[in-house]
Amino acid sequence: MKSDFDALMQARNLDALLVLGSAEHNPPMYYFTGGGHVSAAALIKKRGETPILFYNDMERDEAAKTGLPTKSFSAYPFMDLMKEAGGDQALAGAIRFKRMFNDLGLMGGRVGIYGHVELGSAFGMLTHFQRIAPEFELVGENGMDSVFIRAMETKEASEVERIRNMGRITTEVVRQTADYLTSCDVREDEVLLNEQGQPLKLGEVKDKIRLWVAERGAELPEGFIFAIGHDAGVPHSTGNPEDLMRLGQTIVYDIYPAEAGGGYFYDFTRTWSLGYATPEAQELYDQVRGIFNKLWEDFDLNVPFKQYQRITCEYFESKGHKSQLNTPAPTEGYVHSLGHGVGLNIHERPFSGLMTGDDQRLAPGVVVTSEPGLYYPEKGMGFRIEDTFWVRPDGRMEMLADYPYDFVLPMKKWKK
Amino acid sequence: MKSDFDALMQARNLDALLVLGSAEHNPPMYYFTGGGHVSAAALIKKRGETPILFYNDMERDEAAKTGLPTKSFSAYPFMDLMKEAGGDQALAGAIRFKRMFNDLGLMGGRVGIYGHVELGSAFGMLTHFQRIAPEFELVGENGMDSVFIRAMETKEASEVERIRNMGRITTEVVRQTADYLTSCDVREDEVLLNEQGQPLKLGEVKDKIRLWVAERGAELPEGFIFAIGHDAGVPHSTGNPEDLMRLGQTIVYDIYPAEAGGGYFYDFTRTWSLGYATPEAQELYDQVRGIFNKLWEDFDLNVPFKQYQRITCEYFESKGHKSQLNTPAPTEGYVHSLGHGVGLNIHERPFSGLMTGDDQRLAPGVVVTSEPGLYYPEKGMGFRIEDTFWVRPDGRMEMLADYPYDFVLPMKKWKK
Repeated sequence: MKSDFDALMQARNLDALLVLGSAEHNPPMYYFTGGGHVSAAALIKKRGETPILFYNDMERDEAAKTGLPTKSFSAYPFMDLMKEAGGDQALAGAIRFKRMFNDLGLMGGRVGIYGHVELGSAFGMLTHFQRIAPEFELVGENGMDSVFIRAMETKEASEVERIRNMGRITTEVVRQTADYLTSCDVREDEVLLNEQGQPLKLGEVKDKIRLWVAERGAELPEGFIFAIGHDAGVPHSTGNPEDLMRLGQTIVYDIYPAEAGGGYFYDFTRTWSLGYATPEAQELYDQVRGIFNKLWEDFDLNVPFKQYQRITCEYFESKGHKSQLNTPAPTEGYVHSLGHGVGLNIHERPFSGLMTGDDQRLAPGVVVTSEPGLYYPEKGMGFRIEDTFWVRPDGRMEMLADYPYDFVLPMKKWKK
Repeated sequence: MKSDFDALMQARNLDALLVLGSAEHNPPMYYFTGGGHVSAAALIKKRGETPILFYNDMERDEAAKTGLPTKSFSAYPFMDLMKEAGGDQALAGAIRFKRMFNDLGLMGGRVGIYGHVELGSAFGMLTHFQRIAPEFELVGENGMDSVFIRAMETKEASEVERIRNMGRITTEVVRQTADYLTSCDVREDEVLLNEQGQPLKLGEVKDKIRLWVAERGAELPEGFIFAIGHDAGVPHSTGNPEDLMRLGQTIVYDIYPAEAGGGYFYDFTRTWSLGYATPEAQELYDQVRGIFNKLWEDFDLNVPFKQYQRITCEYFESKGHKSQLNTPAPTEGYVHSLGHGVGLNIHERPFSGLMTGDDQRLAPGVVVTSEPGLYYPEKGMGFRIEDTFWVRPDGRMEMLADYPYDFVLPMKKWKK
């Protein structure tokens, strides 16, 4: 929560935070600005003080909408800085930042730097800054353990409502997808047909999914997964658009829409087999469903998240699958970890990997996924079930969007 | 063009390029990979050699789709690196990159660093790298003048076709927007009414625009501009969603869709006044149209772009407006510069600012915008006309998408 910042900064001995870049698709800037359309901003927060947003004159109205105290970059005329820097833009930028800090009463100290930006320019400027302002120490925190990721780890009620709303949109789109697929005609060779009577390609389905998300005013990263058969067995394969949709093959559908402009995400996966399932696929699905249900019963307040990863690995290994517990980087079986926090980042704290610390816990206020899966690309199949839930301050686990877990989706116009 | 890289690297004495980050929404990585769904990659290009893509095992299929030579990060087991680094993730990353360079036969030298990434992690890793590998010099090039922006400045024919296709999509959506607005019913007080007979809000129109872009498989940055009245007079105001759509007010509509996943952009602006225009607005529009046409006739092969910015400033000043020529940072009149290159970045070389170098020219192969405008927020009006054109290798200027320049759009169901 935002109220955690000053304590986090104190614990890490940070005197100030510097956030660079646009307010869109830039979680640290979004977190403070609320995601206004400020494209080339900088934000400085001194410990114990409210952040100040620096903006370009052309964006003064957008900067004002953030509600933060603001200051125009034009207070530091760029032409003068360029003269002083002998025409070196990176050095001019460094001089400007030194003045900005000084004008806020910061004459030195440890400054954490953040933001999703173009690395070359930022690195060039910061290298000059360190040279001309050795009284400052610039700190590049690990993005998976920064004061931002720590502060963002526990959500305020207003953030949970935004994630819940994305969950509603997500499950609406998933329902629409299931309705569409199960309504298709089916050819003799079990290939689905589209509205024009042509074989339905996976890419067509993905295009519809994108549109259904857009119709609801949300955005969908290109990397969302709708994969069938072999590709369903490769966890991060997004699916081959030329694949034909067929009965009896596993479909992994992992969709994570966000509020437009790079806001809060939801994360969700279902695995389907249209019309019927092979006995082997049904058995593996039942195993994934089994551990998913067991975990849902077991999740408990303040337990380290990795403990559930261990339980999941043990369960899958007891069924004869490989997992990270005893196989480094397995490429089949249970190949990933159980879940992760969800917020302005699709992956954020707490993480569940076996190597994570005990401080990554199901603490009150975290929002996390649970997503066990099994992957057998050589067998042409893969499975994953994923929901996002909120660890309520009262200690209860609340699924933020409900959706059925049916594996076989009966076709409306086809029977085995 | 990609074939320019080795000469550019030679000229800047760069032995290698290191690109970090995802292939999506990351122009340097997109340029080499073609925009595959590789989320946490690194790409190293030695001078004179083909780039190599490093990927995580989970994304092996997506990495293979790029057509680049690839290598898995698993060749550098992270657990071993973490042990060696005493648990410091940034240091472990630095050790890994040193080994990756060495394994490619790079034992030292100047390495340019690029990529749109989370700054903290990258900066932390690079700081360690510089310490443990002083035989390397890391170079943070200015993002507006890097070897990438230079190589990307002139487009191959295949890139122009992708930009042209986005131009087709853009003008289709603009036509659809004009059709929608001019078909609306109009209330007695000149407020447009939506399908439900309610006052039409600007935000509703923006939602439709987003959807129309999504229906065509493209993506639209949140910051696109559809602004009326006062907000039309603030160049980067995106428009207030609560504003009501009214007759006789200037509407600035600046739309720049891109291929999904962060590919090639198109950039386009029209200014409209629905039903009728005030005489003052008509006069200012005619001035913008006048200089737009004059520039279109004047553009000539290999002329420095800033020369046209000067012509535009002089023209507007001759009509009594302020411009950057004689007013630093004007907030009304002609307040910005004339245009910019368009490609994988919405703003790229060549630029037209008065301070830019003579090397930013209308060289064969560049794709640029021309976008003169006038801004009077206190009068509640603003104007801009923008098209994107290609300087063909044969020296002709080719507009990449045609669209009419009407200022007053007659309403189908309303007459003055």
